[in-house]
Parts: sequence; C-alpha cells; structure tokens
Amino acid sequence: MLQRDMTDLTTQSETKRAPTSADVARLAGVSQTTVSQVLNGKAGVARIASETRDKVLEAARQLGYTPNHAARSLRERRTKLIALILPTIDNPYFSDVVNAAQEAAREAGYAVAVIPIRAGEEFRVSTFLQGAACDGIIVAGHDNCSSPELQILRARGLAVAVLQERSPDPAISSVSVDLAEGGYLATHHLAGLGHRRIGHITERLRPAADGRSRIDGYRRALAEAGLFFDPALVVVTENSMAGGAAGLDRLLEADGEPATAAFVYNDQLAVGVLARLRERGQRVPEDFAVVGFDGLAIGAFTAPPLTTVDSPRGALGRLAAETLIRAIETGADVGETHRLPVRLEVRGSCGARERPAP
Amino acid sequence: MLQRDMTDLTTQSETKRAPTSADVARLAGVSQTTVSQVLNGKAGVARIASETRDKVLEAARQLGYTPNHAARSLRERRTKLIALILPTIDNPYFSDVVNAAQEAAREAGYAVAVIPIRAGEEFRVSTFLQGAACDGIIVAGHDNCSSPELQILRARGLAVAVLQERSPDPAISSVSVDLAEGGYLATHHLAGLGHRRIGHITERLRPAADGRSRIDGYRRALAEAGLFFDPALVVVTENSMAGGAAGLDRLLEADGEPATAAFVYNDQLAVGVLARLRERGQRVPEDFAVVGFDGLAIGAFTAPPLTTVDSPRGALGRLAAETLIRAIETGADVGETHRLPVRLEVRGSCGARERPAP
Repeated sequence: MLQRDMTDLTTQSETKRAPTSADVARLAGVSQTTVSQVLNGKAGVARIASETRDKVLEAARQLGYTPNHAARSLRERRTKLIALILPTIDNPYFSDVVNAAQEAAREAGYAVAVIPIRAGEEFRVSTFLQGAACDGIIVAGHDNCSSPELQILRARGLAVAVLQERSPDPAISSVSVDLAEGGYLATHHLAGLGHRRIGHITERLRPAADGRSRIDGYRRALAEAGLFFDPALVVVTENSMAGGAAGLDRLLEADGEPATAAFVYNDQLAVGVLARLRERGQRVPEDFAVVGFDGLAIGAFTAPPLTTVDSPRGALGRLAAETLIRAIETGADVGETHRLPVRLEVRGSCGARERPAP
Repeated sequence: MLQRDMTDLTTQSETKRAPTSADVARLAGVSQTTVSQVLNGKAGVARIASETRDKVLEAARQLGYTPNHAARSLRERRTKLIALILPTIDNPYFSDVVNAAQEAAREAGYAVAVIPIRAGEEFRVSTFLQGAACDGIIVAGHDNCSSPELQILRARGLAVAVLQERSPDPAISSVSVDLAEGGYLATHHLAGLGHRRIGHITERLRPAADGRSRIDGYRRALAEAGLFFDPALVVVTENSMAGGAAGLDRLLEADGEPATAAFVYNDQLAVGVLARLRERGQRVPEDFAVVGFDGLAIGAFTAPPLTTVDSPRGALGRLAAETLIRAIETGADVGETHRLPVRLEVRGSCGARERPAP
C-alpha cells in the first residue's frame, strides 16, 4: 500500500511539475516580461494588445499557472475580506442578496465590501482588486462578468464566483436563479386565467445563447398555451419605476389587439406599471393583470398587492458567499454551477386571488 | 521679510517638534508598548482596558501624534479607494448617497467600497480598515460613528468623515442634512392645513442632545401652532414598510382624540402607512394626511403620491466624498461641519395639492 502510494506521488510530481512563467511565455509565444506584465498587474498592462493579453491568460489557464507572489500573498496575508461587485445597489433586490452573503461570510469569519460598478464603467478598482486587499470576489452584471479584468484577477490567483450570469470560464463557479422558469410560471399563470394578449415589459433584450432568460420562459408558456408570440407586445424600457410607467404606455399603444396583462421584468418596474394603470383609470386586475419578478417587500404594499415571481435572493447571496469562501479556503478551482428554483407568489394584481393557481 | 519668515520657522520647529510615541506614553501614563498596541493595531488591542485605550487616544489627539508607519503607508501606498461604512443598504436612501459619493470619488480618481455594518455588529473589518487597504472612510450610523474603533483608525492616520451623525471628534468632518428643519417643515405644513392631532411615526427615539432630530422640529412646529405635544401620538416602530403599517395601527389606537395626520420618519415607513390606511378603508388625504421624509423615487408612485421632505441625498454623498478626499490629499485635520437644507415636496397624500403650501 505504502509502496503504491509513493509511486503515485512520484508519478504525480513528475508529470505535474508546477508550471512557471517561462512555460506560460513559451505556450503563449510571448516574452516573460509580457507574462509578468499581464499576470502581476504592472503598470504596462493597459498598453498590451488585447490579443496578446488573451493569449497569456489562455496559456496560464491551460497550464494552471498562478503567479507565486499572488499565491504567497493569499496564503500569508489573508485579508478575510470578500468583495461583491454589483452593477447597481439601486434595486432592493441586491440589498437582500448582500445581507445574506454578508451573514454567510460573517459565519465563516469574513467581511464583505460592496463595490458598485455600472455598465460601461471601468472594472478597475485600484489596488483593491489586484489581490492585495481581498481574498476573493463575487461578480454580478453582464459587463462585469465578461470583463477581461475578471480573467486577469482569476489568473492572478484570486478566487472568483459569478452571480446570475454565465461563467466566463469553466473554473469560475456560477450561482443564479432560474429566470426562464420564472418567466414561464408568470406567463403560464396569466394564460391560465384566460388572458390571450399577454405583454412583456422588460429592461433589456440581450441575446441569451443559453435560452435561460425570462423571455425564454415567457415564449415557452405562450407556445404551450397555443398563443402567438407577438414582438409588438414586448416592450424594452429603462430599469426603474418611471421606466415601468413608460413601458406600460408603450404596451397599451402597441399595434393590434390590446394586451390585457403583462409579465414585468422586475418588481421595481411593476410598481411603475401599477401607478400608471391607476393614472390611466384602468382597474387592476379587472381591466389589466400584472405579474412582477423578484418578490421584493414593496410588492406586499402596492395597490393592489403585486403577484410576483419570488426569487430566492437570500439563498442566492448565501450560496455565492459559501461557494466563494470554499474556493478561497481550499485553493481549488471548483467551477460549480448552481441554479436555484423560483416560485410564484399570488397576490391581488393578477386576478387569481379567489381561484387556485393553475 | 525673509528674516522674519526664517525666525518664525525656527520658532515653529522648536515648539512643534513632531511628537513621538514616547511623548504619547508619557502623557497617557502608560508604557510605549501599550501605545504601540493601541495605535499600531497589534493583536493585543482587544485585551487592553477601554480606559487605557481612551487615555492613549486622547494623548495622541492632544499631541497630534500619528504613527510613522501609518503616515508613510498613506504617503507611499495610496490605494485610491475610500470605504463607505453604512448601517444598512436596505433603504434606497443610501443608494442615492452612494451613487453620488461614487461619482465625486471617480472624478477625483478614487473608487468606493461600501461596507454595511449593522447596529450591534462589530466594527472590525479585518485588515481592510486598518489603514492598509483604503485611504479614508466615510461612516454613517450612530453605533458606527460612536465606535472606539473609529477613533483608533483616525489616530492611526486614516482620514475619516462622518455622515448624518455628530462627529465624535472635532478633527473629524461631519456632513448631514437638516433633520430638525425637515420635521418642522412637515409638521408646520400639516398644522397649516388645519390638523390639530398630528402624530409622529418614527424609527427610534434617541436623546438628541443637540436638538437636531426630526422630532425636535416636530415639537417646535406644534408649539408654534399652539398645539399640545402629546407623547401618546409619538409611535416608535421598526424601520421597514411593515413597521410603518404596524405604527399606523398603534397611532390610530392611541388614547385620546384620534390623530388625523402623521409626520412619518421616512418614505419607506410611509409606504407601509399608506397601504395600511387603504386596508383600513381610510381615504388619504380626506380621512388621514401623511407626510414622509427622504424624497425617494417610490413617493411619486404610491397611491396617492406621497408628500415628503426632500433630503438632498446626492449633494450629501458628493459633499461627504469631496470632504474626505480633501482630508486625504492635504493630510490636514479639516474638521468641517456641513448641514444641508431640505425642502418640502407637496404631492397628494397631505391634501394640500389644491392650495399653496403655507
């Protein structure tokens, strides 16, 4: 037994010699200076062509190379701090996620710093994110998650987990809620109540290659109910209460037979939709039915109370923190994918309060 | 002229020799080891009696002593990051403050990290706040601002500014909005509309030695209108929408002639108040008038839209960041006090839409 184990160890150490920056340079076809500039965060990195940078990152990934200094820093100078990069903190959705992430982190002895980085802004937070000041980061927001800086941080040995987005790298864990299922539940419910013209008021229409967006579920439920998907009933608007009000106006002014119901991107937009329906003298749910998404506290206090897809915000934040901390503490590339289930919370705005959900 | 200047310089350098840790130890009557433990953040600090710690901090403050290592670290290793310690990010009030602080910081080349620390939690965020990972901190929340850790960070040479609280130290700048004036404007307005029994639904009743809380303005407006201050009409509740609903119930069940109006601590509570009034079949503003505080976006979308004291959240966040960055970059103890004015935003919930505000 011992003999056998030792042989394995020898074999392993021979085949698995730790890769060096020279190996990375050779595989990428660049100089060691360039490798160091990309992976050590030296000043020159901004001037390196993006193809070169990508070649270095890909080579480092293939070889499993982590710069020594980053590894040493992580081992010796644990900051016990994790950073949570969010596209915005304007939506209370994120405060629920942050609170839960923070609670899970605290249980494991970590603190959480929230860094809001809006779409289009530079993902560059001084030395903070360069591995010196935190042990790992949780990233949300499409632009943040697809940023080359994220890959650079990962390549430098920082633990990373992605929230509610596709992971840009199989080694990076991803934790999300099932948006498509939510879109399906909301639309299926409205179709079951007899609505034939169901609109979708949304914040964005990004091509979701994985078919896992709200609108994918919306289309699936329409098809199942034998309803025609009419692009005129899909309205893209700004992600705010005012955006919801403007979106409702546009939906009601769309060509063709008017919509009698809408599945709305999130509860914040839905608050604006309800207010504008009131201003237009339309009764909810008698004249128009509304279903939101997120399950925010405000939904219980609107007039009428809002039917919504309850997203497990707390579980999402907790799982993201736990997954990240596991990656920090084991030093392993976990690459887990978690997708949490959602459920429909039926209140007054859909008109089904009297009858059970279909 | 030159002669004169040189004399002054000589005098200054003689009288103003940089204080050493030995001077601090002498003045505080403790050992240099103790001074070092308190001011350099060594592990032992938690075991030092709080009186001893206070003596060291007071001596360091009196002498203007800053540990060399902290000063050097600040000069040489600027992180270009500022931390914003908030008691919660649940209230959209804070996201408006954060967005503006972040914008001002970005203009000056700084990034912002938000660290939520709830009341009762430990103000100890690993090495992050020990002067190594950020250049300065903006602190909000009573417990955070009165924390001894804040004084320790300050004494270690970190720039500090306090948001919406009394500064615990004359050298620490404070930036706030005029809460008492807001309470006065709201209550004065309701009294001007003929209300004689005006309640106050609030989140807390902390003795405000400086007379600058919302309730001080509420009492001043009542007195001015010749109205009796009735403690039975002041209801303390949880700081949430559900708390607002519960507070309204308690206000309406209070002894004596019932209230016909309420000045509510913030818009979040007021959303709950409006929803509960609707549930109780009371018309707003005909049966009951409501004025909130903060000026959040939601107030334009409630039924009816909410009259509120508009707090300059953006200006507050911006000024806090600018004040802190000035302290970071000049290295000077600024100790500025800013108190920003508020204004009443009249909408439908107070019943004054038809008539001009008094």
